[in-house]
Amino acid sequence: MADTTRCVDFNSDLGESFGAWTLGDDAAMVQFITSANLACGFHAADFSVMDRTVALCQQAGVAVGAQPGFPDLQGFGRRSMGLTPTEVEQMVLYQIGALYGFCRAHGVELTHVKPHGALYNQAAVDPALARGIARGVARFSRELPLVGLAGSTAFAEAAAEANLRLIREAFADRRYNPDGTLQSRRVPGSLLTDPEEAATQVLRLVQEHTVVAHDGTVVPVQAESICFHGDTPGAPRIVATARARLEAAGVSVRPMRALLAAP
Amino acid sequence: MADTTRCVDFNSDLGESFGAWTLGDDAAMVQFITSANLACGFHAADFSVMDRTVALCQQAGVAVGAQPGFPDLQGFGRRSMGLTPTEVEQMVLYQIGALYGFCRAHGVELTHVKPHGALYNQAAVDPALARGIARGVARFSRELPLVGLAGSTAFAEAAAEANLRLIREAFADRRYNPDGTLQSRRVPGSLLTDPEEAATQVLRLVQEHTVVAHDGTVVPVQAESICFHGDTPGAPRIVATARARLEAAGVSVRPMRALLAAP
Amino acid sequence: MADTTRCVDFNSDLGESFGAWTLGDDAAMVQFITSANLACGFHAADFSVMDRTVALCQQAGVAVGAQPGFPDLQGFGRRSMGLTPTEVEQMVLYQIGALYGFCRAHGVELTHVKPHGALYNQAAVDPALARGIARGVARFSRELPLVGLAGSTAFAEAAAEANLRLIREAFADRRYNPDGTLQSRRVPGSLLTDPEEAATQVLRLVQEHTVVAHDGTVVPVQAESICFHGDTPGAPRIVATARARLEAAGVSVRPMRALLAAP
Amino acid sequence: MADTTRCVDFNSDLGESFGAWTLGDDAAMVQFITSANLACGFHAADFSVMDRTVALCQQAGVAVGAQPGFPDLQGFGRRSMGLTPTEVEQMVLYQIGALYGFCRAHGVELTHVKPHGALYNQAAVDPALARGIARGVARFSRELPLVGLAGSTAFAEAAAEANLRLIREAFADRRYNPDGTLQSRRVPGSLLTDPEEAATQVLRLVQEHTVVAHDGTVVPVQAESICFHGDTPGAPRIVATARARLEAAGVSVRPMRALLAAP
Repeated sequence: MADTTRCVDFNSDLGESFGAWTLGDDAAMVQFITSANLACGFHAADFSVMDRTVALCQQAGVAVGAQPGFPDLQGFGRRSMGLTPTEVEQMVLYQIGALYGFCRAHGVELTHVKPHGALYNQAAVDPALARGIARGVARFSRELPLVGLAGSTAFAEAAAEANLRLIREAFADRRYNPDGTLQSRRVPGSLLTDPEEAATQVLRLVQEHTVVAHDGTVVPVQAESICFHGDTPGAPRIVATARARLEAAGVSVRPMRALLAAP
Repeated sequence: MADTTRCVDFNSDLGESFGAWTLGDDAAMVQFITSANLACGFHAADFSVMDRTVALCQQAGVAVGAQPGFPDLQGFGRRSMGLTPTEVEQMVLYQIGALYGFCRAHGVELTHVKPHGALYNQAAVDPALARGIARGVARFSRELPLVGLAGSTAFAEAAAEANLRLIREAFADRRYNPDGTLQSRRVPGSLLTDPEEAATQVLRLVQEHTVVAHDGTVVPVQAESICFHGDTPGAPRIVATARARLEAAGVSVRPMRALLAAP
Repeated sequence: MADTTRCVDFNSDLGESFGAWTLGDDAAMVQFITSANLACGFHAADFSVMDRTVALCQQAGVAVGAQPGFPDLQGFGRRSMGLTPTEVEQMVLYQIGALYGFCRAHGVELTHVKPHGALYNQAAVDPALARGIARGVARFSRELPLVGLAGSTAFAEAAAEANLRLIREAFADRRYNPDGTLQSRRVPGSLLTDPEEAATQVLRLVQEHTVVAHDGTVVPVQAESICFHGDTPGAPRIVATARARLEAAGVSVRPMRALLAAP
Repeated sequence: MADTTRCVDFNSDLGESFGAWTLGDDAAMVQFITSANLACGFHAADFSVMDRTVALCQQAGVAVGAQPGFPDLQGFGRRSMGLTPTEVEQMVLYQIGALYGFCRAHGVELTHVKPHGALYNQAAVDPALARGIARGVARFSRELPLVGLAGSTAFAEAAAEANLRLIREAFADRRYNPDGTLQSRRVPGSLLTDPEEAATQVLRLVQEHTVVAHDGTVVPVQAESICFHGDTPGAPRIVATARARLEAAGVSVRPMRALLAAP
């Protein structure tokens, strides 16, 4: 794998509109990221949104991954659901296939899978669920890396067991707890909306593999990809600023697939 | 293509259960057909149903095709919907991809696409809609034949335009009008529930390429595949009887893919 | 009924957000209208959106009506669907009941029913469908007026047959054809986005009961309510301007319920 | 309240079909029960199913209650979901209103509310969720009793707090743990499918207010209503047998509403 103090992937969730409803500024975000995680019709997106988002990524040269979520459109996939690991496996496989159809139609490679919302959060601490996700990915292809929370044992073990590569990710715009978990969105200040502050966090994540928690603790975080939330206020400016700061510091921002392939 | 008076495909819609609800007797039907059309989660089926139906077909050696339908679970895809041709194209592509995921996981080839219910019926008479379907299939793969109503110009032209092979199908258990269309399900007697009568219709369809309409008219119908509805009362006995009668008459029942490949 | 050259109702569709997705500027629109048509969870809205939209209307002193639509969230209820008149009747009854629950909880009267999107458009020209809607309303209460397109015979006859009062509505922000129908949204210029132009159309509708069609023809239109679309660009300014112009001209803008009650 | 050793209510979940899919034998069950809990379109049922199930209950003289469930059709409302108590409150209110529309149309009184599946099970042990449900009911009407698990403190306190009457229910066809909870459905033998055995459990529940747990422990259970699951194999025979045994023993089976009204 590439030297992760010299290069990193920027990822963001795109294609989260649905029918008549628009969400996020995909056209802006796509200019600054290197990998996009596309909703697959369960928690967000529909077949029209998916078609045009794959096209958008292709034009921008951004890698396309699937972002399966719970079948809960009203809750945007952010509410926990008691699916069995087998149901999760099948649900993930269904959504990967659905997005793959659009990738194939556009001649775009499907490069990774990142679970969404409550599925992601539950999996980070629930080994059985993480294994369900990993099996769903592996049943489609062992060449598809799984993107998961840096530091999560559940993700790491599930990927290893399923013979998948794991891309560990850290967050540009979220504040961390001293134990390396994310501060709850309900805590005021848990979102970093100042572009410079987020950029500083990203630079440190890449160059030092650490993050400064809300109480000042320096926490080790080893990540190959940095996630930028498209719905954080001012999201395009945050990611643009971080990208400029990294490139000025000689860090190259490249798709995760390229990082994995590097010697 | 093979001599269509000597061999024919038997197809049926499988995998139409949903969640806690069961529909049809797939385990019985799969023993007598050669091609199955699997619901893809829009009008019927869910990811669990799809996974186990692909497995069932694999065990039975039955070819697996996708059966995309309108996003109308309550109406079982049998209510017309005013989607644009582009929406239909994207909807078909989404559903093919979703089923492909399960085929790939099971190492099963996806062999054909047959639209379901109102989508099928609208397309048979609406060239723009038929073209939307054909484009959706072609965007996934030009190797996937499209299954459509024998005699429908809309299906024939749409397939030709999209460079897809068309498998024309006739119906074992439905009575025909003198103009070659199907008698409406609302007309009493439009369903052939007597196995011998259905078998006679099938034998004639294959050997003479004709069907006797409800008024006695002999109508030419050129079809490579015969459809058996799993929800016709006594469906397994109907298809079993027809298969026995055909084989006794020296007609071989083989998957459509095999028929297309034949010299 | 009141003198309809001296008073009129302003209605608009509110509560069309869904889950994480926001649509329209309800807080602005509610200040200028007298009647709101609330989505009921089929084509838009969910139980949370409905609860807070009823509260919003209550605070603003705006009358609350139900706006049932087709079960097509992705299509925003704007795609035609082939439901039977009986299904439409039951679907309308379900949605009225659902909204009634929130009205009852807030101590707000449910004052009218206006079908949405494709259901409205189909009903305006399909007597059987219009009757299905009217029966659905009447099964809940014959005290609930039905809001329908001014000039539609289907709406008028269906309401009469079901013993419902009909509120005829005209459109502030849509251009008319010489035959009194609306110019298709696909025709450039079919939307009136200039507040003054819309206000002029409204004033003429109220004072002269006519509208000037796109070719200059003066068409008679008899309406008790004027509809303002919340998703027309600049919608709040359009309705505010029209309201000011009407009030300056001595026309009083009052809820439809009040108009019906007037001597 | 009536002497609960002399009379009891029999309840069952009805109207759990959906679209083309049928579930349960409502026509049989309705002959032996006194109260029906009707699905409201979220976990099962649709507007057509609801309309005809209310009519069926009316003809049979069976009391009609609402059975709100999670918005999870595929999971039949049996999968836990992380809704907030406020969302649960709004969700319950929506579903009660929707069913109320059909009751009103048929001139049938809505007599009670019983949560379904995972919502019921979560509420039995989660006071905040139980309070959400109770508030949803109370916002519609404080005259609607809430049906909950006998012995659940969460249900009892939530009903008391919301000023609702609580109908405590026990189960005819489920085996109990020594602590008064139900044995998991996953344990073999947890379902009582022998009609005589179920009838004996019911008779003891009514006459002695106890149940014999799987290990022989005699557990006190104070219940005003007995639930019979329509999907237990042989359900109609189970309920018929229990009813005959009770009536032979001089116990009267009457709707819960009648029990509450008794002196």
